[in-house]
Amino acid sequence: MSKGPTTRYKVEVQDGTKTSRREDVVVTEEPLELRLEWPGRPPEPLVITMRTPGSDFELAAGFCLGEGFAVRPDAISTVAYCTDVKLTREQQFNTVTVTFDGPPDREPPQRYGITSAACGVCGQQSLDELAERQYDPVDPVEVPLDVVLRLPDLLRDAQPTFGRTGGLHAAGLFTPDGQKVVVREDVGRHNAVDKVVGWTVLNQRSRKDLVLVVSGRMGYELVQKTVAAGIGMMVAVGAPSSLAVDLARRFGVTLVGFARGERCVIYSSPDRVLR
Amino acid sequence: MSKGPTTRYKVEVQDGTKTSRREDVVVTEEPLELRLEWPGRPPEPLVITMRTPGSDFELAAGFCLGEGFAVRPDAISTVAYCTDVKLTREQQFNTVTVTFDGPPDREPPQRYGITSAACGVCGQQSLDELAERQYDPVDPVEVPLDVVLRLPDLLRDAQPTFGRTGGLHAAGLFTPDGQKVVVREDVGRHNAVDKVVGWTVLNQRSRKDLVLVVSGRMGYELVQKTVAAGIGMMVAVGAPSSLAVDLARRFGVTLVGFARGERCVIYSSPDRVLR
Repeated sequence: MSKGPTTRYKVEVQDGTKTSRREDVVVTEEPLELRLEWPGRPPEPLVITMRTPGSDFELAAGFCLGEGFAVRPDAISTVAYCTDVKLTREQQFNTVTVTFDGPPDREPPQRYGITSAACGVCGQQSLDELAERQYDPVDPVEVPLDVVLRLPDLLRDAQPTFGRTGGLHAAGLFTPDGQKVVVREDVGRHNAVDKVVGWTVLNQRSRKDLVLVVSGRMGYELVQKTVAAGIGMMVAVGAPSSLAVDLARRFGVTLVGFARGERCVIYSSPDRVLR
Repeated sequence: MSKGPTTRYKVEVQDGTKTSRREDVVVTEEPLELRLEWPGRPPEPLVITMRTPGSDFELAAGFCLGEGFAVRPDAISTVAYCTDVKLTREQQFNTVTVTFDGPPDREPPQRYGITSAACGVCGQQSLDELAERQYDPVDPVEVPLDVVLRLPDLLRDAQPTFGRTGGLHAAGLFTPDGQKVVVREDVGRHNAVDKVVGWTVLNQRSRKDLVLVVSGRMGYELVQKTVAAGIGMMVAVGAPSSLAVDLARRFGVTLVGFARGERCVIYSSPDRVLR
């Protein structure tokens, strides 16, 4: 059986001198094994990621776009939970197979091994390969300043689970006038981004006029996913890393950090924040 | 040349209607390639992790303990930056070789590929292998409640870089009476934990009477590293995930979350928080 996004535990709460025992709601973290299959090749395990159950097919599709396996909009024919009879029922809901219409757009590495709840830049085998990874520059998207500053609040308002657990990252895609397109939560920030990007893949929605908003900090792997998805602007409440800024500048992503109240810091392509 | 923990960028700061251009300090994120070597085997790349430069040898030693390659206290003979003449000078400072005194305590998988700034549970090849991973239960450590509640502040007071960038996770080891043993920062929370654990490895300091304090949330991979290091208590300002609670309960780690002011939530082995 698939587990829900939260799990209940009996805990002790200490408040001042008072000890109470009660139930606490904790965000669910479960391993997801991703298998890839295409004509002439049986499904083979590629990677295990720790994720919050829910929107698993979007997660799989978004991961395949971010890693370059499914760049063509129709590269993926089906995404399904595993029916491998050797797996227990719980394992079946922790195993997703992506089937391509032909060979994938990039040959997957032999095996990624496991990645944690916050991982997402697997696959390169050396520093040289990492440096050589190539993308097209993104199409610019222009967003009024007042929308940019409202986006983190709009994201928080759309998070159903965070308030109950305090343990979830969120990612959302919004239009330049602040309309919500899709919002997803996950224990791993890269999974949340994969889920919203994967939603556009499965729903054949263009990403060229969208802004990505994330709840936490912006590291290399999140900007890499933004670039791979061709999204022109990324907004966060938190800080970026140096590699995140470098990558955003190289591929023309407008990177906005510390977006809180009336204030934000723009790290790249600032002319696209309309003032 | 090795880069520092922070990098300067020219940015635009928007504050209300006022736009100003200034220099901003951003946390440095750089890839580190880890190579393992032992008698009879030349150094071979194992994994690339995105990390904040600094304490790289501790990071390497802590990673090798967490992954089970260097469990015996004297399993590692040397840790060094690479002198491979094919690498540029910058790449040399982004490549660390760990040399073992003999075969490692666990055979490393062929290659992990890359892990991101928040990854750390690489290596298992399937869901079954993940479930089979075995550790010894940790030795209990008892800590007075007032110390537990002070630990997050003590960690923050010891963070040199965070205030300047807002982009760093921290981990620290403290004694049960609140004395700081070691504190490290990194763009990746798992790297910060590897660095403090690696410090104990390189300095031959027992971990049996120590508490691990982390700045963010507690996921599976952080508790896994705590268990592998034999540390009896983990305290955080943030929330745990379900797998983190499950793992802590299974191996006897006292897990304390939401430790702020007068209040905390104890998820496992609460009798070791002395009240």
